Amino acid sequence: MKVGVIGTGRIGRLHIENILLYFPFVKIGGVFDINKKSLQQTASRFKIAHVFDNADTLLNDASIKALLICSSTDTHAQLIKKAAEKKKHVFCEKPIDLHPQVIDEVLKIVHRYGIKFQVGFNRRFDRNFQALKNKINQGIIGTPHILKITSRDPEPPPGDYILRSGGLFKDMMIHDFDMLRFLLDTEVEEVFALGTARIYTGEMAQKDIDTAVVTLRCKNASICVIDNSRQSVYGYDQRVEVFGSRGNIVARNEYPNTLQTSTVDGVWNDAPLYFFLDRYRDSYREELRMFFHAVEHDQAVSVNGYDGRQPVYIAQAALQSLTQKRSVMLHEVDTLLQKNNG
Amino acid sequence: MKVGVIGTGRIGRLHIENILLYFPFVKIGGVFDINKKSLQQTASRFKIAHVFDNADTLLNDASIKALLICSSTDTHAQLIKKAAEKKKHVFCEKPIDLHPQVIDEVLKIVHRYGIKFQVGFNRRFDRNFQALKNKINQGIIGTPHILKITSRDPEPPPGDYILRSGGLFKDMMIHDFDMLRFLLDTEVEEVFALGTARIYTGEMAQKDIDTAVVTLRCKNASICVIDNSRQSVYGYDQRVEVFGSRGNIVARNEYPNTLQTSTVDGVWNDAPLYFFLDRYRDSYREELRMFFHAVEHDQAVSVNGYDGRQPVYIAQAALQSLTQKRSVMLHEVDTLLQKNNG
Amino acid sequence: MKVGVIGTGRIGRLHIENILLYFPFVKIGGVFDINKKSLQQTASRFKIAHVFDNADTLLNDASIKALLICSSTDTHAQLIKKAAEKKKHVFCEKPIDLHPQVIDEVLKIVHRYGIKFQVGFNRRFDRNFQALKNKINQGIIGTPHILKITSRDPEPPPGDYILRSGGLFKDMMIHDFDMLRFLLDTEVEEVFALGTARIYTGEMAQKDIDTAVVTLRCKNASICVIDNSRQSVYGYDQRVEVFGSRGNIVARNEYPNTLQTSTVDGVWNDAPLYFFLDRYRDSYREELRMFFHAVEHDQAVSVNGYDGRQPVYIAQAALQSLTQKRSVMLHEVDTLLQKNNG
Amino acid sequence: MKVGVIGTGRIGRLHIENILLYFPFVKIGGVFDINKKSLQQTASRFKIAHVFDNADTLLNDASIKALLICSSTDTHAQLIKKAAEKKKHVFCEKPIDLHPQVIDEVLKIVHRYGIKFQVGFNRRFDRNFQALKNKINQGIIGTPHILKITSRDPEPPPGDYILRSGGLFKDMMIHDFDMLRFLLDTEVEEVFALGTARIYTGEMAQKDIDTAVVTLRCKNASICVIDNSRQSVYGYDQRVEVFGSRGNIVARNEYPNTLQTSTVDGVWNDAPLYFFLDRYRDSYREELRMFFHAVEHDQAVSVNGYDGRQPVYIAQAALQSLTQKRSVMLHEVDTLLQKNNG
Repeated sequence: MKVGVIGTGRIGRLHIENILLYFPFVKIGGVFDINKKSLQQTASRFKIAHVFDNADTLLNDASIKALLICSSTDTHAQLIKKAAEKKKHVFCEKPIDLHPQVIDEVLKIVHRYGIKFQVGFNRRFDRNFQALKNKINQGIIGTPHILKITSRDPEPPPGDYILRSGGLFKDMMIHDFDMLRFLLDTEVEEVFALGTARIYTGEMAQKDIDTAVVTLRCKNASICVIDNSRQSVYGYDQRVEVFGSRGNIVARNEYPNTLQTSTVDGVWNDAPLYFFLDRYRDSYREELRMFFHAVEHDQAVSVNGYDGRQPVYIAQAALQSLTQKRSVMLHEVDTLLQKNNG
Repeated sequence: MKVGVIGTGRIGRLHIENILLYFPFVKIGGVFDINKKSLQQTASRFKIAHVFDNADTLLNDASIKALLICSSTDTHAQLIKKAAEKKKHVFCEKPIDLHPQVIDEVLKIVHRYGIKFQVGFNRRFDRNFQALKNKINQGIIGTPHILKITSRDPEPPPGDYILRSGGLFKDMMIHDFDMLRFLLDTEVEEVFALGTARIYTGEMAQKDIDTAVVTLRCKNASICVIDNSRQSVYGYDQRVEVFGSRGNIVARNEYPNTLQTSTVDGVWNDAPLYFFLDRYRDSYREELRMFFHAVEHDQAVSVNGYDGRQPVYIAQAALQSLTQKRSVMLHEVDTLLQKNNG
Repeated sequence: MKVGVIGTGRIGRLHIENILLYFPFVKIGGVFDINKKSLQQTASRFKIAHVFDNADTLLNDASIKALLICSSTDTHAQLIKKAAEKKKHVFCEKPIDLHPQVIDEVLKIVHRYGIKFQVGFNRRFDRNFQALKNKINQGIIGTPHILKITSRDPEPPPGDYILRSGGLFKDMMIHDFDMLRFLLDTEVEEVFALGTARIYTGEMAQKDIDTAVVTLRCKNASICVIDNSRQSVYGYDQRVEVFGSRGNIVARNEYPNTLQTSTVDGVWNDAPLYFFLDRYRDSYREELRMFFHAVEHDQAVSVNGYDGRQPVYIAQAALQSLTQKRSVMLHEVDTLLQKNNG
Repeated sequence: MKVGVIGTGRIGRLHIENILLYFPFVKIGGVFDINKKSLQQTASRFKIAHVFDNADTLLNDASIKALLICSSTDTHAQLIKKAAEKKKHVFCEKPIDLHPQVIDEVLKIVHRYGIKFQVGFNRRFDRNFQALKNKINQGIIGTPHILKITSRDPEPPPGDYILRSGGLFKDMMIHDFDMLRFLLDTEVEEVFALGTARIYTGEMAQKDIDTAVVTLRCKNASICVIDNSRQSVYGYDQRVEVFGSRGNIVARNEYPNTLQTSTVDGVWNDAPLYFFLDRYRDSYREELRMFFHAVEHDQAVSVNGYDGRQPVYIAQAALQSLTQKRSVMLHEVDTLLQKNNG
């Protein structure tokens, strides 16, 4: 199977590396990035022969069966549409798009052409969250009543990235909205958001928040709460807790080692893994494995277009809630968008 | 110092036992309970000579310097007023009253007569939360940004208790509203509540919730979230987490022992302490110690009337938020009450 | 019940305090200490009326039913004998005596007069080791194969104490020899000791060791290993691990609080409880409760004379092993002592 | 660089897989195994073209620069000698040989021909033990006083393997003897062993032990204790603790996930990783990386012949100690072997 990779930034290179290491039956049939320097460095580092001048040429290469879209979010929709028209399967980084209505258009086209379409919510493939979901499904904690997600980055991304990213809800908490749907197999109905800028200063603090707590009510009556911070000085803090009628499960952080040291200062461990590429290294490999498996064996993908759509809608509701200081029903987002479009 | 104890239920008896065990300089100068059987059993068990027929006689006993009010909530206000008029110092179980405006009246009288008045938020005296506050004050985690409180009871109290209790917010989460104020030294501005009945059935489920998540925004810009459940099958779950600009602190549960057992089934500990009287045994002793100290040395009490008032106001805001599906500002509660009174 | 207390050092005062706090049915009928200053301070602090000029007068007081012997080890044997002759029950601090043959004489007299005789191996009453023994007895880990005890003091006692104490094996590791017998319900057959002075300097390092690892083989085929250090800078380190055919149990340390703090330096807890009086506070109370119970209800004591004897024999074997660089059978100690006596 | 692999059992295949996955600059220039079926399956599974009929032909292939010896222990010595004569570098699985004097002969030849020679003590490359050694070297716990290693297999290997393996000390505890030398950078002087058969039955129990505790005194005065069991029902138990003048470090077990589940039965984690290939997966890759690095850059290997020799000598001393019920000095083994040879 030949795949094309569009976008050779951090994530694009990670996927390329994983393909070369773990999936010998997959060949890199082409790469493209709008940044020529990044493109050439990547091609050179990984000895990729097929370097394309533009995305369209790559999309026109009939030998390429599937596309990995790792470029900036504003390019996703067009690339997906074109790939679908060429009947190429697509693995697309999150979010599909910042605008819910654009996503809905994209998904219609994906559906029309019947391609495999997987969205890059890699955390679903983390060994801990997989095990957590299994235990929930086995009924070990009974019916879930409360879900709590802690998700804190070690440090904020660069300012220009943040401004293009769609903001904390659509760039960062979107992973947690997806985690909620993944773990509880339900849909969100109501969203309330509190957020503030505690780390950003100046213009940044005007344009986005860096600290937020969002509560959500689901169709299955469970209540969820997600807290995010852009700056956790002790490392990447990624924990999930599910409380149910028969018990409670916590997925704790991952550490660089298992050492516990006792001195006059107390008993301590090294800080949790600092970087998301360390913490989720294996999950990036596993999501690709599942995508290639779905393409090869013509099976359903594990994170489909609807899974990519819903977190953006929830993020949109969170944004409205933050502005309007009230809880927002998810169906309001739909209605509002239809009205605006009408 | 002679004290009178009104109310010989579970908490009243606990206070009596602690006085006899740990405070030899304090004498039980009188006890009263409306339930004659409970009164006699208590007097007999603890060999208390001075058993009163009614509260007024006890209040009139000039030898009694301070009063412990452990009777049902609806009796608190009257008892406090009368004690104040007799210039007796008062230690009163939480909440002072279910109605904010009643509390405000009570506090005026307390202030007029200048008595010592301490409210029974015992958890402030728990060794873990004391240590937590110390570490925050030492600046170990920098400026607090997010506070998370988990507070889950092992099983619901009897139905008739719940119905008289003022509901989950005023009976149970009130402790957590106080913990927030204690740990962060700030006031709440905005409250949003999600709650539901997952454990209660029938009429109970109509009248109260048993599962709730409340988010709060504070004057110091920190965001707080509290989750409560009336039924945590694995025991009493009492955890607090404070995330700040320089770190994170978690106060974890207390366990009956330090054993860790490994078998083919995994690695396990015994469940956390099941009952609040086990978990908070020492904190009940310490709050009395501080009260007696304040009375003896004419010093400020450690949990004053205003500390007793604010959590009820927050609970009132949470109730409104739950009904109105929007966040409620704490000053709205004040305004609303004034309007209703006017 | 009236008790006499001989020895008003740290442990004597602790027992007096516990009696006054927790055992209202027990009266302090007399105290004596060879150190007049300590005696008077203790009597004054605890308002004890009956202060004796010498041990004999106290022993002659017919109203005293039981004796707590908390004086220095070299006085134990004589005091026990005299108490037994007066038919007073005895609670004696460990060790009974430093010399095995003296212990055997004492135990004969105890047996002849039929008094209750309990030895102060307080750790048997620690909640963790109690729970550990219960789990072993329930068969949770199957048949024990390996027992590991870690026992490290935060800092060495004063030099003159160490020199009088009988050395590390008879003063400190004796507790662990007892723990082994308590947990496994077996007898030791073979002992091998490695020890060295790593903390002591000068004369002290010539006269005693401060760091030791002792391995022991038991009649029930289990193998045990105990490590001791006189100086654990991070606090009192008291852990036990039992490995068996069906699992493993670890009794971990006790901490001053449950806090876990994460900063750029890592994730840390406060150090374990530093002092044995903090770590074993409750166990000192419980051993007295059991002794008073045995006296009151004429039941067998929970730590009898034989339990007091065996650890001294094991310590004697460890001393021989250390000198002779070979493992020593416990029956050799008996034989040797008989020969020396013959 | 072309390498040959002799032995296509479990470890041989693991090394081949790691080479193919992680070391693209290393080519498998040949494989051989005395078991033709295993050889063919391996060649087929990994698409290895160069399958040899016998070891000598492989050794004669001039294109092969280095040899991985993964065959049974009794073949190691001859293979190393022949490889050395052909000036091929050697990576050899542990132990070099069961007989100390054979090892000494092998090492002379290795030295004479100046080849790189690394012994497969993979655990040295485990991230936890690496971090542990770093912390010791940084002086975090001061001078080491006591080292404790727990090493328990989940289940015994097949009986015929055990009988050929040299027994528990030379097959299993040898890893721990190496760990001691690695972590403390010292040599063992004195060894005392207690061991017994608790799991084996019948003939097996006559021929080998399955449970052992060995204490060792080192040149640097530290005391070490190692406990082994062939059957730890809760999984692979691999822990190390180093106690020093300024603190204590524990390397704890690795788990399949970070989940902690609370139910009425208690609070539990899944059992530790069960299998050594899971626990030490990365360390097997890292030891190869270091070997290839040493060969490529003509640098010293990280585990040299002397490191391969010493654990066998310690194991030999442990065997003597077990039989003679006394501690055995390591230099006695040397002397004894010389006498036997003379």
